[in-house]
Amino acid sequence: MRQIAQRDDIRDLILDGVDSLLSRYGYRKMTMDDLAAAVGIGKGTIYLHFSSKEEVALSHIDRIIERLCDELELLARAKEPVDLRIRKMLQLRVLFRFDSVQHYTQSLNDLLSALRPSFLARRQNHFEQEAEIFVRVLEEGRRENTFQFHNSRVTARTLLMATNSLLPYSLNARELGERSFLSDQAARIAELLLSGLRSRRKKGGK
Amino acid sequence: MRQIAQRDDIRDLILDGVDSLLSRYGYRKMTMDDLAAAVGIGKGTIYLHFSSKEEVALSHIDRIIERLCDELELLARAKEPVDLRIRKMLQLRVLFRFDSVQHYTQSLNDLLSALRPSFLARRQNHFEQEAEIFVRVLEEGRRENTFQFHNSRVTARTLLMATNSLLPYSLNARELGERSFLSDQAARIAELLLSGLRSRRKKGGK
Repeated sequence: MRQIAQRDDIRDLILDGVDSLLSRYGYRKMTMDDLAAAVGIGKGTIYLHFSSKEEVALSHIDRIIERLCDELELLARAKEPVDLRIRKMLQLRVLFRFDSVQHYTQSLNDLLSALRPSFLARRQNHFEQEAEIFVRVLEEGRRENTFQFHNSRVTARTLLMATNSLLPYSLNARELGERSFLSDQAARIAELLLSGLRSRRKKGGK
Repeated sequence: MRQIAQRDDIRDLILDGVDSLLSRYGYRKMTMDDLAAAVGIGKGTIYLHFSSKEEVALSHIDRIIERLCDELELLARAKEPVDLRIRKMLQLRVLFRFDSVQHYTQSLNDLLSALRPSFLARRQNHFEQEAEIFVRVLEEGRRENTFQFHNSRVTARTLLMATNSLLPYSLNARELGERSFLSDQAARIAELLLSGLRSRRKKGGK
């Protein structure tokens, strides 16, 4: 038990090191030696946890998503109307990522272009983790007759897809620099999507 | 007049050459010498039209967008219900780009990662060109009371933003390979957005 806790601690320490090196050097210039020195452990210890520099950078992104999902869970369970929860969750998934990479905006292009193919493959898993949380709130909204839709997973993926263009990967540095722009855009897309999801209790027209 | 026509012809021939070299070699390996040879003109003539290899590749992307906008104009003016037109336009902007880069999927990562910062800056102009066309259809829909919204330009940008994650830039090669996936996703996002835009002729609830 103690040993497992320690392993997790070291893993987290290494990923904290990656985070700070990314902001200082960027991905391409960062070396495993730098990382070992920054964490204060031997390079061999890093390789016990991560197979390569690419793997350590991707795991750093995975950790951002795990933390995001913890926050999404909290919003999903809040005692608030389902549509408000969905809006806040959509805004959070955009702003949480923004905040997580904000301190290394300059090196983000570098990181993303170096990792592009393997990162895009990984991204699919991130979206599925998020979708699961959205599915639960959507289904709750359907049970209470606030939302109308056929397939909850398809609908969850559509909500994510419609806000994916606001994630750091698609935005340029100037856009990434404006948190309020992102927040507004996410809110607008969310509002339009939510109007589309709401049940029309009184049916008008054909 | 004749001279201007000729200049445009040569420009187009050069861009056709870029298109075929991108699919054969990819961006990084393509040289201005290759391009001159492929088009059958001197390298100096290319430099009369384009200042650099980057500029020629970006102009090639600009041309894709000009052609897309011509097609969008046709859909925008079609004698069809406004919501159907908007849906078709949203699908077109996704599928037209997909089709335009389909023959060099393999080298697309290469092109986009090399051009990333300057391409992202250029993309804003592309979106504004598209937005102008959407604005006109949205306003027509508002006049005839099919749509309800406040600001047509903000709404147009929101529609584009909500489908931007389906553009080649954000998708991985596997996703890019599935045209039907893209088409379905674009249709789903469009349907949800359009339900959000439709006027509720009979107002129910608060």
